[in-house]
Amino acid sequence: MTQYYLGVDVGASFIRIGVVNVNGEIIDKVKVPMPQEGDEDTVANIIIKGARENLGKYLPSISAVGIGSIGPLDLKTGNVLIAPNLRWRVKRFRLYAPLRRGLGLPIVIGNDAMASVWGEYLFGQGAGRNNVVYVTLSTGIGMGVVVDGHLLVGKDGNAHEMGHAVVDIESDLQCGCGGYGHLEAIAGGGNIPKSARWYLEKRYRGQMSELALMVKEGKATTPDLFNGFKRGDPFAVEFIDYVLKAIAAGVANVINAYDPEVVILGGSIFLNNVDVIMNGLNKYVKRYVANRMPEITGTRFGDDIGIIGAAALALRVPESLKPFIESQEKSQ
Amino acid sequence: MTQYYLGVDVGASFIRIGVVNVNGEIIDKVKVPMPQEGDEDTVANIIIKGARENLGKYLPSISAVGIGSIGPLDLKTGNVLIAPNLRWRVKRFRLYAPLRRGLGLPIVIGNDAMASVWGEYLFGQGAGRNNVVYVTLSTGIGMGVVVDGHLLVGKDGNAHEMGHAVVDIESDLQCGCGGYGHLEAIAGGGNIPKSARWYLEKRYRGQMSELALMVKEGKATTPDLFNGFKRGDPFAVEFIDYVLKAIAAGVANVINAYDPEVVILGGSIFLNNVDVIMNGLNKYVKRYVANRMPEITGTRFGDDIGIIGAAALALRVPESLKPFIESQEKSQ
Repeated sequence: MTQYYLGVDVGASFIRIGVVNVNGEIIDKVKVPMPQEGDEDTVANIIIKGARENLGKYLPSISAVGIGSIGPLDLKTGNVLIAPNLRWRVKRFRLYAPLRRGLGLPIVIGNDAMASVWGEYLFGQGAGRNNVVYVTLSTGIGMGVVVDGHLLVGKDGNAHEMGHAVVDIESDLQCGCGGYGHLEAIAGGGNIPKSARWYLEKRYRGQMSELALMVKEGKATTPDLFNGFKRGDPFAVEFIDYVLKAIAAGVANVINAYDPEVVILGGSIFLNNVDVIMNGLNKYVKRYVANRMPEITGTRFGDDIGIIGAAALALRVPESLKPFIESQEKSQ
Repeated sequence: MTQYYLGVDVGASFIRIGVVNVNGEIIDKVKVPMPQEGDEDTVANIIIKGARENLGKYLPSISAVGIGSIGPLDLKTGNVLIAPNLRWRVKRFRLYAPLRRGLGLPIVIGNDAMASVWGEYLFGQGAGRNNVVYVTLSTGIGMGVVVDGHLLVGKDGNAHEMGHAVVDIESDLQCGCGGYGHLEAIAGGGNIPKSARWYLEKRYRGQMSELALMVKEGKATTPDLFNGFKRGDPFAVEFIDYVLKAIAAGVANVINAYDPEVVILGGSIFLNNVDVIMNGLNKYVKRYVANRMPEITGTRFGDDIGIIGAAALALRVPESLKPFIESQEKSQ
C-alpha cells in the first residue's frame, strides 16, 4: 500500500493541511483560515476536522503527521506559546495531546521555519547539501538551520528566533516582543506599516509623496510600500532599502554563525516581492558578511513549502526532535 | 602526588601561562609579551620555553595542558588561522602538533572565550548553573556559551564569533574582517579610535571638544575616550554611549538565543572600565531583550580568567571538544 504523510502548516493567517508522498510531492491539500479567536484546542480541532472531512480517504494510508507551527513553541509539552503575531486572548494552544488522541497517529512537531528547512533539505534546494538555512519572510521572520545534516532545535525548540536579533541599535521602534531595533520590528510583514511610519517620522529627510502621506495617516499597507518601491516612489525607495538592509543583516548573521552552502527564502512577503528582495540581498548580504557567500535563492515550492516541510518532519524524524517527542508523549 | 594543570592564555598582546590546581586556583604563573612578528611555531615555542624555564619545577606534576587562544581556530588540526587582531605576515600558527611533541602531555585547545566560559562554569560565577555566557571585551570581542552544561563549539570551533554580528545596519564603518556594522568594528578595543573618528565624521552633531579634535587627528586612544566619558566630555559621552549600545545589543542577541542564567564579562576593556560598562549594560540590555533578564556580572578572576579557563578545559575536557582532539591527534 502506498504510504503517505500528513503535513500541517499552522500559520498566523491560515492552517494548511496536505497529503504528501515519500518523494515530498503533495497529493491533495486543504486550506482553512485561522479563526480570529479561539481556545487552547481550536487549532487541533481544525486540523482533525480538516483531515477527516477533506482528506478522509487518505487517512488509512497516512503513516504519521508532521506539524510546522508559528511559535514560540514549548516543545517539551508540544504546545504553542502564543506568538505576538497571533492576537488571541488565550496564552497558549495545545497540539501534541489533542492531535495524538484525535488522529491516533505519530505526531512530529516543529516550528514553521524548522519544518521548511527540513523540507528543503530532503526535497528542495537543500537536497545533497549538509548545511542549509531557510528564511521565512512573512507576517513574522523566522529561520531554520541544518548544520552537518543536523536540524538545530535549541533547548526549548525555539533556536534561531532570529527575528529578534538587534540589527539597528539606534532604532527606538518597539517590537511586538517588547525589544527595540529587532529585525522583525523593522521588516516583519505585520510590522512594515508601523515601521514605515517610524522611519518617516524619525529618519526620512527626502521628498514627501502621496504614499508618504498615507504612511503618516496609518493608511499604507505592506503591499502599498513594496509597490511604491517598484514604481520609484521616493519615500518607499528609501524605506524599503532600509528594510532590505535589515533582512540582509539577519541573513549575514546566520551565514557568519553557520557557514551554510545555501540560503533559501520563502514566505508571503518574499513570494510577493521576489525580485525586490533578491536584488536587495544580492546588494547587501555581501556588504555585511564580507568573507564567504553561499548561494542565495528562493524556494521553488511557493507557499506549499510549509506543508512539504511539515510532512518531511514526520517522514524522516530529525534526531534532535526525538527527545522532545518522548517528553511530549510523557506529558500528555 | 598533587595534580596540576597548565593553563595557557594566548592573547593578541600577551601569552600567559599558569599552573592551576584541581580547585581552579593559580599556583604560579608567567606572562610573556606576544612578539611583533613570528612564524608558525613561534607561539608554541614561547609556551614550551615558558613552561620549562619558569614553571619547570611543576612539570612532573602536570597532568594536561589547556589552551585558550585568539582565533579564528581550525580545531580540526589544532591550528590558529591568524585573527585580524594579530598582524603577522604568516597566515596561521600551529598549536597542537608542536605542543604535543614539545611537552609530551595531553593538549586541549579552545578559543579564549570558550576557555573562559568553561572556567566560569567550573570555578566562577557560572558554578552551579547550567546555562552560562562569558563575554570578553578586549582588543576584539568574543563570547563563550554553555547550554545545559554543554560547551558550544561549532563545526570548526568558532561558534559565536558574535563580534561579527551586524548591530548597526546604517553604519558604513568597515570591520577588520571586511564586513560593515559589526559589533567588533564599533566596540572592539583595537577599533575604538577608528570607530570614534567615524562617529565624529558621520553622526556627531554636538559640541566640539579638545578630545573630539584629537579623535579627528587620529590621536585619541581607547583609554582617552573612556576617560573622556567619565569626566563628561560631550563627544566621549555620546560616542561611548553608542559603543555601550552596541555591546548591549550583542549581549541581548546572545540572551535571546540561549536564555542564560548568568552573563559574565571580562577582558581588558571591561576590567579597566567596569562601572561605565556595567551601567551601560544595565541601561541598554533590557531595552533590546525586553523579556527575560539574566544576572549580568563581571568576572571575579580579573585577567587570570584566561589561564583558569584554559586549565579548566584540560581538567574537565568538554564532550564537544573530544572529537576535535581525536582529529588533531590524527592530523599531526
